[in-house]
Amino acid sequence: MIAGVVVARNAREAVAKIREGNADLYEVRLDRFESFELAPLKPFADRLIITIRRAEEGGFRRIPEEERLELYRRAMTLKPRYVDVEARSEIAGEVMREARKRRVGVILSHHDFEGTPPFETLMEILQGMASMAPDVVKIVPTANSHLDNVRVLRLYEHAENLVAFCMGPLGRISRLFSALLAPFTYASLEKAVAPGQMSVEELRQLLVMLDGR
Amino acid sequence: MIAGVVVARNAREAVAKIREGNADLYEVRLDRFESFELAPLKPFADRLIITIRRAEEGGFRRIPEEERLELYRRAMTLKPRYVDVEARSEIAGEVMREARKRRVGVILSHHDFEGTPPFETLMEILQGMASMAPDVVKIVPTANSHLDNVRVLRLYEHAENLVAFCMGPLGRISRLFSALLAPFTYASLEKAVAPGQMSVEELRQLLVMLDGR
Repeated sequence: MIAGVVVARNAREAVAKIREGNADLYEVRLDRFESFELAPLKPFADRLIITIRRAEEGGFRRIPEEERLELYRRAMTLKPRYVDVEARSEIAGEVMREARKRRVGVILSHHDFEGTPPFETLMEILQGMASMAPDVVKIVPTANSHLDNVRVLRLYEHAENLVAFCMGPLGRISRLFSALLAPFTYASLEKAVAPGQMSVEELRQLLVMLDGR
Repeated sequence: MIAGVVVARNAREAVAKIREGNADLYEVRLDRFESFELAPLKPFADRLIITIRRAEEGGFRRIPEEERLELYRRAMTLKPRYVDVEARSEIAGEVMREARKRRVGVILSHHDFEGTPPFETLMEILQGMASMAPDVVKIVPTANSHLDNVRVLRLYEHAENLVAFCMGPLGRISRLFSALLAPFTYASLEKAVAPGQMSVEELRQLLVMLDGR
């Protein structure tokens, strides 16, 4: 499955993009919203990943943790398929508790915009995140060489419900590979939101060519 | 670099295909030849990989080892860039000695048409082959799952001058990945010669799309 990343200023704009999109799921970046009337998103809830990305991990703007937590609470009333919260954020535990109460899935995420650590460090990150028992673990470092991708792909040998690939132009091969190994992977609806990100269209074409049928 | 696999009944037919080809190197499968006047290949020698694949590892026909060795000797008079001989064949050592004498590169190869062994076994195979000090080690098992590819790609963390990928439809992702990590990888000039093999054209398209420029 492919999750299209929706970058919009409000729910109406997001819905317009979802209606035009050709993804399976849609990650809506509330950290990009300017107004927070969320009801228009309700009809798409079972295909939504709600993300309020903290600035330290690539968020569009700096949002105080208390405000972010409040936004997660409001977003969870939509009953989205998932909320995505960063494992290293103060509010991760609280967001997970609230999500469980409301039967909303949790993607626990970890982003590294600098590089890809040694495999042992990646495994420690994975185990630490898995111990919090989220529904999905998302680990996304940055590739500085093609070989960096191999270390990240090795994580699939140690976990189910894992989304792991490298950002950056040299990480595109593991983005493609994650479409084969992960429950879902991410692609842009329009221009790339993260370094090296492919569009949904590009990713689908690559998968068809790769399938060779 | 991409090595186009040339399947022809004689040198003239092979040269015609090479002239039409768009690969960087050309692997000429002498195990498919019906007549052995090799001189027409001489002008292309520095881009040639000469392979006389034994039947047990996918050869087109059964050739007695003595006859195969004689054919390698004749092929080496062309001074091809490489000869490819299977590490598990009786004549591997002799072919390597003769190749060294004539300054012809050696690809030592290992094919498994059944599956992909555990990583530890793959490493033993790699180390055994590397100990014979060929110019290139080629390890090509078969993928029965997408995850099998990851074990084979891990070998790139342990060797330079390695060509490693999985055959089979589920192995195409590691064929693509090997184009990024290996000194060269293989593609067909026409229809696939090995399970899951892409054409040179397909592989080039995939690489352009993957590059995203």
